[in-house]
Amino acid sequence: VEVISYGYTGKILHVDLTTGKTSVDQHDEVWYRTYMGGGCMSAWYLLNNMPAGIDPLGPENMLIFSIAPIVGAPVPTISRTIISAKSPLTNAFGETQMGGFFGPELKFAGWDAVIITGKAENPVYLWIQDDKVELRDARAIWGKDTLESQTAILDELGDKRIRVANIGPAGEKLVRFAAVLHNMKHACGRTGMGAVMGSKNLKAVAVRGSNKYESYDPDTLRDRASWFNKNYMSNVANKELNVYGTAGIVNGMNERGMLPTRNFRKGFFEDAEKVSGETMTETLLTKGEGCYVCPVRCKRVVETNDQWRVNPVFGGPEYETIGALGTNCEVSDLAAVSKGNEICNRLGLDTISTGMAISFAMECYENNLLSKDELSGLDDLNWGNSVSMVKLTEMIGNRQGLGDLLAEGTKRAAAKIGKGAEKFALEVKGQEIPLHEPRVKGMLGITYAVSELGAEHTRVEHDADFDEFAPQIFVDQAKVLGLLERLPCETIDEPKIRMYYYLQHHFSMLDSLGCCLFGFAPVRAYTMTDLVTIVNAATGWESSLWELMKLGERRWNMTRLFNIREGFNVSDDRLPDRYFTGLENGAMADRPIDRTEFNDALRLYYDMANWDPDTAVPRRAKLVELDLMWAADKLPDWLEQGKKLRADGNIER
Amino acid sequence: VEVISYGYTGKILHVDLTTGKTSVDQHDEVWYRTYMGGGCMSAWYLLNNMPAGIDPLGPENMLIFSIAPIVGAPVPTISRTIISAKSPLTNAFGETQMGGFFGPELKFAGWDAVIITGKAENPVYLWIQDDKVELRDARAIWGKDTLESQTAILDELGDKRIRVANIGPAGEKLVRFAAVLHNMKHACGRTGMGAVMGSKNLKAVAVRGSNKYESYDPDTLRDRASWFNKNYMSNVANKELNVYGTAGIVNGMNERGMLPTRNFRKGFFEDAEKVSGETMTETLLTKGEGCYVCPVRCKRVVETNDQWRVNPVFGGPEYETIGALGTNCEVSDLAAVSKGNEICNRLGLDTISTGMAISFAMECYENNLLSKDELSGLDDLNWGNSVSMVKLTEMIGNRQGLGDLLAEGTKRAAAKIGKGAEKFALEVKGQEIPLHEPRVKGMLGITYAVSELGAEHTRVEHDADFDEFAPQIFVDQAKVLGLLERLPCETIDEPKIRMYYYLQHHFSMLDSLGCCLFGFAPVRAYTMTDLVTIVNAATGWESSLWELMKLGERRWNMTRLFNIREGFNVSDDRLPDRYFTGLENGAMADRPIDRTEFNDALRLYYDMANWDPDTAVPRRAKLVELDLMWAADKLPDWLEQGKKLRADGNIER
Repeated sequence: VEVISYGYTGKILHVDLTTGKTSVDQHDEVWYRTYMGGGCMSAWYLLNNMPAGIDPLGPENMLIFSIAPIVGAPVPTISRTIISAKSPLTNAFGETQMGGFFGPELKFAGWDAVIITGKAENPVYLWIQDDKVELRDARAIWGKDTLESQTAILDELGDKRIRVANIGPAGEKLVRFAAVLHNMKHACGRTGMGAVMGSKNLKAVAVRGSNKYESYDPDTLRDRASWFNKNYMSNVANKELNVYGTAGIVNGMNERGMLPTRNFRKGFFEDAEKVSGETMTETLLTKGEGCYVCPVRCKRVVETNDQWRVNPVFGGPEYETIGALGTNCEVSDLAAVSKGNEICNRLGLDTISTGMAISFAMECYENNLLSKDELSGLDDLNWGNSVSMVKLTEMIGNRQGLGDLLAEGTKRAAAKIGKGAEKFALEVKGQEIPLHEPRVKGMLGITYAVSELGAEHTRVEHDADFDEFAPQIFVDQAKVLGLLERLPCETIDEPKIRMYYYLQHHFSMLDSLGCCLFGFAPVRAYTMTDLVTIVNAATGWESSLWELMKLGERRWNMTRLFNIREGFNVSDDRLPDRYFTGLENGAMADRPIDRTEFNDALRLYYDMANWDPDTAVPRRAKLVELDLMWAADKLPDWLEQGKKLRADGNIER
Repeated sequence: VEVISYGYTGKILHVDLTTGKTSVDQHDEVWYRTYMGGGCMSAWYLLNNMPAGIDPLGPENMLIFSIAPIVGAPVPTISRTIISAKSPLTNAFGETQMGGFFGPELKFAGWDAVIITGKAENPVYLWIQDDKVELRDARAIWGKDTLESQTAILDELGDKRIRVANIGPAGEKLVRFAAVLHNMKHACGRTGMGAVMGSKNLKAVAVRGSNKYESYDPDTLRDRASWFNKNYMSNVANKELNVYGTAGIVNGMNERGMLPTRNFRKGFFEDAEKVSGETMTETLLTKGEGCYVCPVRCKRVVETNDQWRVNPVFGGPEYETIGALGTNCEVSDLAAVSKGNEICNRLGLDTISTGMAISFAMECYENNLLSKDELSGLDDLNWGNSVSMVKLTEMIGNRQGLGDLLAEGTKRAAAKIGKGAEKFALEVKGQEIPLHEPRVKGMLGITYAVSELGAEHTRVEHDADFDEFAPQIFVDQAKVLGLLERLPCETIDEPKIRMYYYLQHHFSMLDSLGCCLFGFAPVRAYTMTDLVTIVNAATGWESSLWELMKLGERRWNMTRLFNIREGFNVSDDRLPDRYFTGLENGAMADRPIDRTEFNDALRLYYDMANWDPDTAVPRRAKLVELDLMWAADKLPDWLEQGKKLRADGNIER
């Protein structure tokens, strides 16, 4: 078979921590165009180079930092680094992403991905300086938090411009939802990639690159960047992202009855205003910060000199963090939430899973499934107790007492607690639900249920036409796909599943391209047409929205195959029972998801995806259509492996 | 449901010939964007406004002239007029298209489509002058050929700039493959739309428009047009289209062993050179002619003063005509082929079906299934007898003697002849096979089998990587879809079916947009990206290749649904036995299509299309995905209707 050549070729670094050996992979342009970057590239490696059923915290796990070919281009909102591995939280495909400067720096060093296997005998960190790759002793910084260890690394290497991704004690102690941090505030939070790093005795990856990003058509990239810089903030909603950060949505969500409160029992929190983006900007905020070449600066930096003494070097809380540590625990003290955020970023914890574990514990305590004696010294665990929230966050990161139990994730913790605690554990496939309400956003329940990562909101968060709110987001972008009608927000009927199916590929494509949702979703952001222009200008390819949407769909199918191989099946695509009962308060109270409608929607979705609707397994024809014949050939074996692993209890481990 | 508004809105004219009444349809932009024009728009009307099982030659049949929204834009190669109805040749969905000036003129008159139902008591023609619509007496020109009747109409209306689409005696006499002609040389040849016109006592449609084409962004259209005019001919293969017409491929096809010869028994014709485009240009050609604003001028005008006295007003033979009346009958007299072409255009006959009917008759004669007595006065019907070929063409158009039998199409003729004549009738669903060899072009066999029209080559003709030949065509265009590898020509394996599935939507999309394949398929023609640019500049929409590809897929599914409703089923997706035996000569001799491989490929294709692989019926999820819930709701009834109609022999009539 002759390959048509286009131009892009990159390098992928392999590091075996057991042997200390490194090697380099190079692929042709067709491979890059087919698997691109992000989760799609990771899935290729995990499916091809890692056996099924391995212990995610064992040396066989393959930890992948991957950077799409367009990351590093001097264009705002394309700077995402994706970290993947088998997740110790879910035993499924793991993936998490962050902005900042790490990804572009890795590209400047000449790498599209770094793939780490094995386990170092003693703690090490990986130092990449262009083609020079070195494993360095990290024994002195093992046990240190993210600030201490990053500072030590920069001092040791003697260059402040080095970019670091590291773990804190939580990762070292294998907290199942431990995060990887970059510069103490850009968090790769979800699915426990920090624990995978910890399990490998890998404290950090430090990178410095001296190359420039080489693009095919720099003028077009400049033109699109300059358009963005001029126009993006002229949309009020986008400007608010700059002024209030992601927390700017707190008040709106509350009004609309979809602000998660009291472990998702309520949709309205009386004190929401106190933890809103507006309040943060007026009180604790010292400045906004941003990612590589991005003018939006949506990241928060907060500081307090009150009892909490929040250190600004750890940034400030995102909306998700405010929802998780704040409203969902009914904590209305923004400084305490900011402290919780600092602790998560310092110890290396996912704020979503941490907060959800705490609200889970609060509900267990309320229902006497946890007694005061089991609180490891906390005064109580009542809703709204900010001191207990902060302390418990620290205990989770350090695996102390009750924190050690919760560090296993709510699913495992609930199983240990027993007595029906499972009904308070809001998780899918073992991952805690993010702070978005599926009873209000219809597509969100589907996406939580079917996501390869367990509950995950960046896999199609928003529904069309949520009053004045959502039209600002996604809908006007979606018309380019032929989604021409605004649909009600909470429905999961046929038109909505069609919309979901298309948008799912869209989001998955953004993931594989290292794009920030905020750059490509709102009105007066980049359109999907711009994305095609940027991809072509960066790489010299002649791609199209068709090809890129199919990339997104390919990624989605490959991650599903990974989970099938690990033993997951259609019964794992589910939502916690809570969402099939109504919210207790707020504008959307008493409107549960209808279980029959939900199950019908799932079946329709599978069939639309050309997956068997009974088993949710991709039909061979779909895999062939996505140019995944190699995977289709292996699928029968993978199904067998998966069944055996499931029977052996692998996915529950 | 709120509709998002974009800008384009057009008008559709209904004419009821029985009552003489007219009415006007208007649709919103979402409808246009969903059904666009061409076969997709027609299918919508045929499915929604015409009952199942009607006699295609009865007044209930709905004859639709449809013009995509972008037709009329001052951009080369976007001028196609599509005519649809239930086909009297196949009893399936009928569709045929032509270039020229008729479509743009209809647009200048303010119409996106003209939909004709009923039957006039006496022959009439339809005269459309902007909003003025008139049925005029055509009794005086009934029986006249296309030249005589067009001349009479222009004289009567007193304006030479009027554009006419008319039928000749063949249409009036209901030859099942009668054509509709425009200016005596642009032919809507296939599926017998001329007979439908004849059955309605409709001799012609004459149009004159005084509006200008209004576009959203004229500068961009001008820019793309000027690019085309400057660059298209700089590709040698494109230039040859200008110099030699479509017949420029005769010699190449012959060398490669895929020039249909002796009713598709052979792939090499010793005398091909004599009927080649090169020979035509050197001998009979007087000039090239083109379509609306097109610089390519691929149409031929030939003239002879020999025994055949070919009149240049009828143009000259296309490749298909040379194959059908020439090589496949082993006729090597280019003047005779040109005469046959003249007769087809004068009497209003499809040259492909006419030629294929003649080669069928020749093979019947060779095998003594037709005796000399049954030749209605022809000397003989030996291979290569140019005199008999020309005479028989005329006899078919006038339904005389043996011509009357063949005017029913080869399928019905074979059934009447009996004695195993079916094996010489090369047709699918009753339509004669075009002059392209499925044993050499792998995708072509699939496309013949599954096409809604019966055998049809414009539904994905070309295979990738046919040596030096096909890389000039399609392949370099296809990479934008993510078809990144050149594939062998004759295969029908999984990668090829993937390619077929994508290209099928691509071709179907071009059909729905009124685009000429020659403008959008070769190297250095418009790319698919250009097409998106043109659609957006013409309409003011923000469309994408994703949306347009889905339009193509929607059209494909809707036409399949039409056929299901009429009683067709998976058993009708077949190829004649001949193609499962090898060619008798040429570079590709003795390489039959493997029947198992072929059947497997069909099943894979159905499954890829998200159709049930056992029944080839679209799954509901696919119809929902294509925004065809209304059709999905009716499908169960349509299946029942279809079964009943099939049992009643409807599709054999």
